[in-house]
This record gives sequence, structure tokens and C-alpha cells, in this order.
Amino acid sequence: MNYEVRPIGSVESPLVDPKTAPKQGFEGAPEAWLVFNPEVAQGIRDLAIGAEVLVLTWLHQGRRDLLAVHPRDDPRNPETGVFSTRSQDRPNPIGLHRVQIAAIDGLRVLVRNLEAIDGTPIVDVKPVLDGER
Amino acid sequence: MNYEVRPIGSVESPLVDPKTAPKQGFEGAPEAWLVFNPEVAQGIRDLAIGAEVLVLTWLHQGRRDLLAVHPRDDPRNPETGVFSTRSQDRPNPIGLHRVQIAAIDGLRVLVRNLEAIDGTPIVDVKPVLDGER
Repeated sequence: MNYEVRPIGSVESPLVDPKTAPKQGFEGAPEAWLVFNPEVAQGIRDLAIGAEVLVLTWLHQGRRDLLAVHPRDDPRNPETGVFSTRSQDRPNPIGLHRVQIAAIDGLRVLVRNLEAIDGTPIVDVKPVLDGER
Repeated sequence: MNYEVRPIGSVESPLVDPKTAPKQGFEGAPEAWLVFNPEVAQGIRDLAIGAEVLVLTWLHQGRRDLLAVHPRDDPRNPETGVFSTRSQDRPNPIGLHRVQIAAIDGLRVLVRNLEAIDGTPIVDVKPVLDGER
């Protein structure tokens, strides 16, 4: 049984080229805006500046038919099963990004260190829990 | 534009009742088996005993129409936007679980501290990165 993911917004970022974008946010990514759809306004009402959150995205440029890749797109790295990598190429290309909220302007939320490229669909946002730090 | 999530396996757990299951794995959840579909065997080939991984599930019993909930299903907690909670009720009910691999038997992977109930579809597995610890 399959399920339908319905994006709740999208990323607005200066990063446009996946080839040159950082692989992980903590490696130094720019600020980016999470732009939410008006329908989910109630869901984001308790987001707060300074909070650390997990942003889940749909990596729409990922290849869903690959089960093994060279990590970090580097052919020198031995081919590895995708579930032991953070490659965007995977059966369900869901991206997971830990970011900090820098500003909020209505349906637009500015976050630090997001490596997702411009236009990436957002599918969920979750708080980081104390037990996960 | 919507996307289709195709489960890669499912959870086999002694937990069957969401009402009595722990809310978070680190609060004390049992061991559970991740049972992968044969089609993704190549993808799991590099999972290793002892590794910490993030398991993403589809919380198929979640309500997708709720945008605010009482956290931890406790009516004494003030109603909160779902994106500031880990409720299973959210527009895209994707569960995120940090677990440790205890054993591997072919397509079956035993993990510690998984609070997902029996039969929950698995949609992705990712390594925990050093920068996220």
C-alpha cells in the first residue's frame, strides 16, 4: 500500500545547483526561507525564534531506483547501500535537515544552515527533543 | 504537486496498542524487528550491528486533517501547532525514530527502543551523522 505526500510549503534559498550545494547543513549552508502554504498556518503558529527544528523535505531531484551509491557523489568512496548514506538517491527521497529558526514573518520562516536547494518541497517540521540531543 | 511514498518494509513489534505504547523510543520502548522487502536488499547491505540509525515510518493511524493538538494526548497540555509537536496527527504523518541496531538476519534487522506499533510501514533508514550528535 502506498501513501500520498502532500507538500506543506517549499524552500526559498540562494542555493540552486545541487552539484555545488553543501552536502549537510552543519558543513556550512546559507540561511533559507521556509515558505509555508496558507492551509497549514495553524500548524506553524507555535514555531519560535531560536528553536532547533527538523525539517523534512522531498528531494524531488533524487533518483528512486538506486539502492547503492558512492557516498558524497565521490567515485573514490566505495559503493554503499543507500540506507547507510544520506544520498538524495533513495526509494523515498525524504531529506532530513536540522536547522535553527532565525526569524518568522507570517508564513515565512527563516532558518540557518539549510542545504536544500531552492524550490525543494517541505513535507514536515518537527521539534528536536531533549532526549535526542 | 504530490508524491507517492512506497514502503520499503514494516515494523514487527510487541507493541500493538498506540494508546499504551511509549511516546518516544528514549522513554523506554522494546526491541522490534524492521522487516525489509526483498526489493531493497541491496540498500540495507551495509547496515551494521551497533550502528545508530534514523528510521522513518509512515504513521498510518495518524489523522492528516489536524493542525493543532494537545501534546502527548494529554488534554491538560495546551493545544499546540502540530509542527511544534511529535504527534502522529499531522498533514504528512512521517515518524522519526532514532534506534540502535542489535542484530541482523537477512532482511530482518532488530533494533532497540522503537516505539512504533506492530505493522507500521517503514519508508526510509538513514545513518546518524557525527555532526548531529
